[in-house]
Amino acid sequence: MLQRTYPDQTCSIARTLEVVGERWTLLVLRDALFGLRRFDEFKASLGIASNVLAARLDRLCSEGLLERRTYQTRPERHEYLLTGKGRDLAPVLLMIMKWGDRYYPNPSGPPRVAVHGGGCGGRLDDQLSCDRCGLAVGFADVEMCPGPGMRPSAQ
Amino acid sequence: MLQRTYPDQTCSIARTLEVVGERWTLLVLRDALFGLRRFDEFKASLGIASNVLAARLDRLCSEGLLERRTYQTRPERHEYLLTGKGRDLAPVLLMIMKWGDRYYPNPSGPPRVAVHGGGCGGRLDDQLSCDRCGLAVGFADVEMCPGPGMRPSAQ
Repeated sequence: MLQRTYPDQTCSIARTLEVVGERWTLLVLRDALFGLRRFDEFKASLGIASNVLAARLDRLCSEGLLERRTYQTRPERHEYLLTGKGRDLAPVLLMIMKWGDRYYPNPSGPPRVAVHGGGCGGRLDDQLSCDRCGLAVGFADVEMCPGPGMRPSAQ
Repeated sequence: MLQRTYPDQTCSIARTLEVVGERWTLLVLRDALFGLRRFDEFKASLGIASNVLAARLDRLCSEGLLERRTYQTRPERHEYLLTGKGRDLAPVLLMIMKWGDRYYPNPSGPPRVAVHGGGCGGRLDDQLSCDRCGLAVGFADVEMCPGPGMRPSAQ
């Protein structure tokens, strides 16, 4: 059953935040989008307590944003794979990233940059317009690349 | 000073969530985008405790997403106006809304729908492509209209 944290809200934003609005949840999804799968990988990336991470992963699985798969049996180990539903939050995370880059810029530049895929390679502004071809770019054509502010260890 | 809730994260997403990731904050911004300005309006819309709302409004003002303006002096009353910085979160809220509409649909339809402005009026899909003219639409050209799931009292 969906936990009703915003019970009186007839609102698609409130319903979404019931699922992904808990502390750390969007950062777990960010890491999953960047290819992390295993508990220890998430834990190392986020630096959070195991019980908090386990609770967030369980919730994301029960809501169908991640899928838990056993990759080892002795001892049993699981990995967490993004579903289509989880992957469809990428535009939310992208727009959060663009806003953060604009208003709370990293002194050494953005850790990641959004570029226009499909061979163009132009940089995308806050409106997702391409600085090379000038088109408004749909989310399906956005690619992420390491930016100047990426820490070497994170590439 | 910026509260460091995700201290080890070199990440534009984490930095943004430090500012807007608290419970209720994105719903306060949603209401501000839909035109609410006064404390009592936010309180009636959100149904939250006054001290929580006051804390969220204060934080949004100190981070420059809202601007507090006195509209009455006896007794003193304030209203809260979105700044450009606050308004620039609209794309985040729009993509959160689209995801919620898709995966947690309201039985009577979406409360609000995103349409292609500037005279076109087509509906926008999850990629912000227009179902009338077929274009990928930039955020500046998105307009919000009441949808079939809007409660009459909220229009």
